[in-house]
Order: sequence, then C-alpha cells, then structure tokens
Amino acid sequence: MNYASYVAADGSHTWGIVSEGTAYDLGPSGLNLAPSLGAAVERGIFGTVGEEFRNAPARPEAEIEFLPSITHPGKIICIGVNYRSHQKETGKAEHQKEQKAPTIFTRFADSQMGHLQPAQMPASTNEFDYEGEMALVIGKEGFHVAEADAFDHVAGYAAYNDFSVRDWQLAATQWTPGKNFPGTGGFGPYLVPAADLGDVNELTLETRVNGDVRQKASVADLYFTIPQLISYVTGFTRLSPGDVIVTGTPGGVGRFMVPSGLLSAGDVVEVEITGLGTLRNTVELVD
Amino acid sequence: MNYASYVAADGSHTWGIVSEGTAYDLGPSGLNLAPSLGAAVERGIFGTVGEEFRNAPARPEAEIEFLPSITHPGKIICIGVNYRSHQKETGKAEHQKEQKAPTIFTRFADSQMGHLQPAQMPASTNEFDYEGEMALVIGKEGFHVAEADAFDHVAGYAAYNDFSVRDWQLAATQWTPGKNFPGTGGFGPYLVPAADLGDVNELTLETRVNGDVRQKASVADLYFTIPQLISYVTGFTRLSPGDVIVTGTPGGVGRFMVPSGLLSAGDVVEVEITGLGTLRNTVELVD
Repeated sequence: MNYASYVAADGSHTWGIVSEGTAYDLGPSGLNLAPSLGAAVERGIFGTVGEEFRNAPARPEAEIEFLPSITHPGKIICIGVNYRSHQKETGKAEHQKEQKAPTIFTRFADSQMGHLQPAQMPASTNEFDYEGEMALVIGKEGFHVAEADAFDHVAGYAAYNDFSVRDWQLAATQWTPGKNFPGTGGFGPYLVPAADLGDVNELTLETRVNGDVRQKASVADLYFTIPQLISYVTGFTRLSPGDVIVTGTPGGVGRFMVPSGLLSAGDVVEVEITGLGTLRNTVELVD
Repeated sequence: MNYASYVAADGSHTWGIVSEGTAYDLGPSGLNLAPSLGAAVERGIFGTVGEEFRNAPARPEAEIEFLPSITHPGKIICIGVNYRSHQKETGKAEHQKEQKAPTIFTRFADSQMGHLQPAQMPASTNEFDYEGEMALVIGKEGFHVAEADAFDHVAGYAAYNDFSVRDWQLAATQWTPGKNFPGTGGFGPYLVPAADLGDVNELTLETRVNGDVRQKASVADLYFTIPQLISYVTGFTRLSPGDVIVTGTPGGVGRFMVPSGLLSAGDVVEVEITGLGTLRNTVELVD
C-alpha cells in the first residue's frame, strides 16, 4: 500500500492511500481515521488499513498536491557519507577503516517539501546539489534499542532527496545551514509499510537529473546498516513514532562530478527506489 | 523581571514571574495569561506584565521545580567556537582569519532541563563536559533579517549550559550525538526581557564547577555578534517566537584543561550571567 500526505480539494491537509492512480482520502476531509499520516503512524493505524480504503472519497492522483510524507516529524535525523561510493568521492575513503560512528546531522521540519513541489534553490548559493536517499519512519518509541530489535521500530520507508546548499554546508565544520533551507528536503511520494516491502537490502536507489542517471546503488551497500543506525541513534536520543532517519546518499552527487553536475533552475531531479515510487522535484530559484 | 517555567503544585507545567524569592503563577494553574512561557512569548505577553503579577497565586521560589525557560522551542540553534578564547584552546585560532561563517549545530527540545534539574551524564561516556553560554529567545518571526533590525527580533535572554558528551560529539565530523543526550541542555533559571537588560555586550558570563571559576568572559567578546548571528541564521531558516539561539561558549571547558577538568557524578556546575541569575545543575550518572 502506498500512503501519502497531500492537500485536500478544500486546501486543508489530509492523507490517504494512493492506488492505481487514485488517491483515497483517509484524513480529516475523508474517512478521518487520523488527523495526519504522522498521527496514523503514532496511533498504529498506518499499515493496517485494508480494502475499506476504497470507500473513501477519492480523487485522481494527478490532481492532488503532495506534501512531505510526514509533514511535521519531531526529529529528522540525517546520516552523512554512509555509502562507500560517496565516502570515496568525498575523499573520506582513507578514513573509512576508522569510521566507528555514523555522521549525523539534522533537518528542521520546515525544510521539507513533497513530491512535485519545487526544490527551492536560494539566490544566495552557487552550489545547489541533490542527494538521493532512502528514509525510514519510526513506528515505535525507543531508547537504547538493540540492533536485533531495530526493525521492530520501523513503520515504513520512503524516498528522500536531501538537497544541499554546498557553499553554506561547507562554510564551517557543521553542515546545519546548508541542510535546512526551506524547500530542500524532498520526502515521498509514498510512505510504504515495512511489512509490504520484504528485505529492504534488496531495494535499489537511482537518482536522475533531467533523465540522466547520476546515482545508482543498492540499499545493501549502506556502510552503517539500518539496525546499526537505529541502535546508535537511540544511544543518545529517544525516537518516537513519526520521527525520520534519512539513511545517506551514494556516490554521484553533483559537486564531485567532472565537469560539475550541480543543479540549475529548471532541472528535474528524480529519486526512484524499488517499491517506493519516484520522487520528482523541479529546481526553482527563490529569493 | 525574571520569568520562569516551572512545575505547579499539582504537577502540571506552568510559568510566571519570580520576584524576591517568590514565584507568581501566571500560567494555567494561576492567572492563566498563556498556557506556557513559550506561548506568552508568541502572543507578545512576555515582557509586558506589570505589577499585577503580585495578585497571582504565589509559592516560595525555593519550593518550585524549574523547567527549561522555553520547554519546547521549535528550533534550538547552537553556535560553536564563538569566543576567541575557546577558538584558541580548541586549536581553531589559526583558522580564525578565515572563519567567515558561524559554526551551527542543533539540539532537540527533549535534551533540555531546567535550573536545579540534574545534568544527566550517560553511562556510555568518559568525557562529560560543560559549556556556559548565553541564550537568546526570538520574539518576532524573521527570515532574511538585516543586522540593523536583528535586536528587534530578540524577546529575552537566559543562561544556558550546553553540556557536551565529548566522545560522542567527536566520534564523527558532525557533533549532533554529543549535543543531544537527554538532560544536557540546561536553560534558565530566568528568561529576562531584552528591554530590562540594557546593552547585552556589558553582561559577563562565569561558569563554576564546585565553586571554582572555569570560564569568565564578556558577551562583548563574542566573535560573531548577536546581530550577525540572527542575520546569518535567518539567511537559511525562518525563526519564530520561542526559538532559541545559544550563542557559544568561551574558553575554559573541561576537555582542554591540564589536568582534565571533565565532570564527574556529583559535580555542581553553575553558569552565572549578569542580570540573568545563576543556572545550577548537579551531575548525575544515568544508564
């Protein structure tokens, strides 16, 4: 099942299930099973909706405006340099043996946008870049979670594009500024229950810019695995339902291409992950 | 006026004004001017309460349990290495000429605690440290704020102790883990309206461990000034009332002392800032 957050016909925010080109409204403007997809995750409704969704008010998928899958996560935890191919291109390969801990930064919820909403390239940058990633959404509260129990804490998965303002990211040692501009965290189109997916290690991720493949990797290539990430993160902070971990990007980001593959206004960036659909955002220059 | 967030006699959370050893309840269990101090900032009530506070239900200050001044800030933005004396001890002095941008990391709201609540040293660290700082609370929404207008966006100031789990902070390039353990962001005791303080550059900050002075600096020594910080931060993210900027720590942190001045269970750490009171937390070892 493909769950999504979107704007209802009356302009309010809702959520539902998208099936065969139709969006079925399970939120406040529809069956009202929960006020938001995040709340549906918190209440254990996400992933349990059966065929009754077909009784919900429906609209063509092509007519809805997608929102970030989880519109207001309490915590968005992003993992850096977590594929060997990206470690290598960033020059971190030689440190790889010593990489004992994941690289972790954060996004504020208001930096996110949904599928087909613009990726906002600020006028203050000369280096706007993409990072195709797989995100997971927490379904069960946890602190000090053992690796063996980690998958029990995952509600579902989605595609994510961690658009990065490189000059602001790298102006100081900490990356926060370059990762928190509005309209830079693409999240969706669908949040898919973990139970529907099977082994996430068999998923593949592909990022395309104007149709050209830039990144291609298997989730199995993650340097720190999903259980390792959940265990490590809950070693310092409590994770709650609706929190998001963005698991890292593989090699092929624009900054390290020769010649440069950085983004320009009008570029169409897609992140496609097996079973999770294709996240598409067009770059728009904003003040 | 000294505003504070605290636990009411019935266990609920409230806020009020503390004057001459008495806490006057202006929150839900008292005059109910706003549900929280954060909401009072949002609604423009903070800083405008006159002598009528003396009509509120009152308790001795010594009997209240303080909470973080703002219990649930939307954004907690922390500035690293922002005093020359701390740049020097961390070995960053030689880069100082090139430091064109502030170093910015974030805290989650659930990492905070109030005055007299324990500083929670996790069992997983060997390097628990203090960082006395001055925090400011935003009073007016802003994006792309000019330096000349920056002070208009500040509601008030408070002491902050950015307790740091150094081994987790420095395990990778990004500091997030070591700055987000529960019970490590001490905030208070009082939030004082900017209008009551005069020139913040005249304030001095002193951090003591078991009574020994470890850090002593003037706010005038900030490398990036408050207007520069607000202008820079709002260059990439929107700030809203109740958001917090923790402005950085001066030299004298425990990690760089010879011999080491890192903290142990039972240590009493105080951050005193002129006009803002003394934030006191005792280190407690937790699992």
